[in-house]
Amino acid sequence: MAAWGERLAGVRGVLLDISGVLYDGGEGGGAAIAGSVEAVARLKRSRLKVRFCTNESQKSRGDLVRLLQRLGFDISEGEVTAPAPATCLILKERGLRPHLLVHDGVRSEFDQIDTSNPNCVVVADAGEGFSYQNMNKAFRVLMELENPVLFSLGKGRYYKETSGLMLDVGPYMKALEYACGIEAEVVGKPSPEFFKSALREMGVDASQAVMIGDDIVGDVGGAQRCGVRALQVRTGKFRPSDEHHPEVKADGYVDNLAEAVDLLLQHADK
Amino acid sequence: MAAWGERLAGVRGVLLDISGVLYDGGEGGGAAIAGSVEAVARLKRSRLKVRFCTNESQKSRGDLVRLLQRLGFDISEGEVTAPAPATCLILKERGLRPHLLVHDGVRSEFDQIDTSNPNCVVVADAGEGFSYQNMNKAFRVLMELENPVLFSLGKGRYYKETSGLMLDVGPYMKALEYACGIEAEVVGKPSPEFFKSALREMGVDASQAVMIGDDIVGDVGGAQRCGVRALQVRTGKFRPSDEHHPEVKADGYVDNLAEAVDLLLQHADK
Repeated sequence: MAAWGERLAGVRGVLLDISGVLYDGGEGGGAAIAGSVEAVARLKRSRLKVRFCTNESQKSRGDLVRLLQRLGFDISEGEVTAPAPATCLILKERGLRPHLLVHDGVRSEFDQIDTSNPNCVVVADAGEGFSYQNMNKAFRVLMELENPVLFSLGKGRYYKETSGLMLDVGPYMKALEYACGIEAEVVGKPSPEFFKSALREMGVDASQAVMIGDDIVGDVGGAQRCGVRALQVRTGKFRPSDEHHPEVKADGYVDNLAEAVDLLLQHADK
Repeated sequence: MAAWGERLAGVRGVLLDISGVLYDGGEGGGAAIAGSVEAVARLKRSRLKVRFCTNESQKSRGDLVRLLQRLGFDISEGEVTAPAPATCLILKERGLRPHLLVHDGVRSEFDQIDTSNPNCVVVADAGEGFSYQNMNKAFRVLMELENPVLFSLGKGRYYKETSGLMLDVGPYMKALEYACGIEAEVVGKPSPEFFKSALREMGVDASQAVMIGDDIVGDVGGAQRCGVRALQVRTGKFRPSDEHHPEVKADGYVDNLAEAVDLLLQHADK
């Protein structure tokens, strides 16, 4: 442990994944991961800058923050980089009108977006909304477009809820890509643009930041490709095989956020 | 037209796709494609051997044949090569017990198969059965296996019903492959084993056979890779862009099965 802890020297800002690091979703909203409420509070009392960088696309940013506050976390909406608001900016810039294949909980994020006569599809973690009928509707919209454009809010394979593993948006993005013979534009981790905007919002250079997440590909691999150091926590969707991933090696593995913060506070200033 | 018709010289046996060539499925069972009932009858009166080679995996072979008979086709169960019976043979050979993500209409094909304590997953065109809950259940079964095995009955992208295009099993196979980081074993077109068993059952060599289908990749490309000539019909899921497919070029394109049979009867014997 201590050996690689030295790699944290010079860190000035911390990007925190939310699901699987702060809490596991599930019945009644889910449950905080042991030690994480206190770990976030300690980080915030330190000299380190903190920003939350999530692919959560089932809930609006406001609902997610209110849920986390209820679980005891010190977090506000302005501290969260999330894919739905980022997507709205892109849609406006490019004059696109989406057909939304999203969870009802996140639909309000798109209130200001024209969805009439759609010329693209936005897919997010729709959960139970991924019915055959809804998937087929999105598929038909894409097939009727001359230049089909598909945005996917993240491309995670799965996440962990208190009841077990749950399919994330990624598999459904792949289904639509294959059905239509197209490639989706991913908004969210591991897209470099998304990490860069989180760093910009935190005001810290890539070389002075560290990402802490439970997803070896989306969090760790994505951050490293942007020059950001990355730790994987052994909570959330972590599986032991992640430590022998064929392509991605984290800068360090920790049992949970609490251990990551211990190491950061010990080594970051050096 | 006539120019490439000469490529049909020496054909002794014809493999016919069913959906999109004989009929389009849909409300009330669907509708025969104009001219196809008579075209099958003419083929059967000729010296050519005929076999039906389908990826239909929503209905049992018996139900499919009864539906086609009701639409006027001369067809019997013994003339049909279909993926569900082929899958049952493989499961028995390898001692595998499947979790079935299939349509209720095809479940009876697996009546003789032990499905307790599953050690593999079989995915077929489940239609409305592709709910989030059912997909997540299949995903969890795979993730709990040390060596996850996934069989997919075909890998078609979509097919056409009278109401429009419908997602086929392929996109859902891709979703599970991505979620679990595995590759499915495809039983059905375009798997070479499947074409070979249809040829064996028809008693005709690959070089003396022709496949007629509406799927440029599954029917035409699959058959050609086995040394079987292939025509694409402009019915069913056919789209004009298929005639400029980047990888697959049919030996000929015909408006429908009736035109294909005209050409076959004119050129096959030469």
